Amino acid sequence: MSEILQNHFKRFVELDTITLSHITDFFIPLSLQKRQILLAEGNPCTHLYFVTKGCLRLYCLDDKGTEQTLQFALEEWWMTDIDAFHKKGKSSYSVQAVENATVLAITKDDWTVLLDKFPELEKYFRHVYERAYAASLFRMKVLRLPKEEFYDLFCDKYPMFIQRIPQKILASFLGFTPEYLSELRKKKMK
Amino acid sequence: MSEILQNHFKRFVELDTITLSHITDFFIPLSLQKRQILLAEGNPCTHLYFVTKGCLRLYCLDDKGTEQTLQFALEEWWMTDIDAFHKKGKSSYSVQAVENATVLAITKDDWTVLLDKFPELEKYFRHVYERAYAASLFRMKVLRLPKEEFYDLFCDKYPMFIQRIPQKILASFLGFTPEYLSELRKKKMK
Repeated sequence: MSEILQNHFKRFVELDTITLSHITDFFIPLSLQKRQILLAEGNPCTHLYFVTKGCLRLYCLDDKGTEQTLQFALEEWWMTDIDAFHKKGKSSYSVQAVENATVLAITKDDWTVLLDKFPELEKYFRHVYERAYAASLFRMKVLRLPKEEFYDLFCDKYPMFIQRIPQKILASFLGFTPEYLSELRKKKMK
Repeated sequence: MSEILQNHFKRFVELDTITLSHITDFFIPLSLQKRQILLAEGNPCTHLYFVTKGCLRLYCLDDKGTEQTLQFALEEWWMTDIDAFHKKGKSSYSVQAVENATVLAITKDDWTVLLDKFPELEKYFRHVYERAYAASLFRMKVLRLPKEEFYDLFCDKYPMFIQRIPQKILASFLGFTPEYLSELRKKKMK
């Protein structure tokens, strides 16, 4: 499981095998069942997660109690309430496994020690956050498109999500009702 | 002007005065008139900007040709189309001065040399992107709130924007019509 993370580190920074092994020793492997909650909204946000298999989602409840999915993390993506993690605060979001999944988890204290000990990783996390920030900017842009156009763009850019994510969750991410998404899918298949 | 950037670096990383001076030599100071376009959608994104005075906004045009403001940058914030900047591609957004402003600009090539020469700055930019990512996640969450609740939360968290940003631009950021924002403001003042 650590190998996936080691390979991901190597894509952005040069690190030898021994260092990589020391680094991944900081992480705890976890196995999750489909629908298992890793982090619950309102609870202390204690860990940052790296997905090695499966898919997680980040969501919150709106004022009507409806789940609003804000983000997915497939293999090689990181996920947590990033603000709460760094401030050691309570989470504003929940994180749930969308499929059976395996993740590597690290606490904030360990993460701080890790970056002090291996400052090369600053570059790695700079890349990770840079990409996450660019992706959320793109999403804010497309959220304002007409629904069908947004859907087409999303299918084009992230075909793996369309295949893997259950319809109800995908609808909550797109801001559609499940009925509207179902109708749209039928229309597109014709 | 460089002093503001030097002080901002010092908040996140330890750097001596001589190093700081070498670092800020990489930046070009620019003065902008209110409404001046720094980067136009569809043009090559060549620079990353740090605001030393005034306010910038990042926006795009929707399918109806209406401006959609996605982000503001006040003093000590960075702004560009981050994806296009790093890929040396064409910008998907425009950047405009909302007020008379002064900024420090750096090209992608200089930015790469800068980070190679002063790897301590990786930590600084990790912080910058981390905060930008967390802020955009927060915004995606509140965008789904009922309009009035979103406005109250925004006023509470960013009072300086309410005071400084022209009503029309603020409305385009909030996803309101200018008329709706005007009505809401009148209601709140009562």
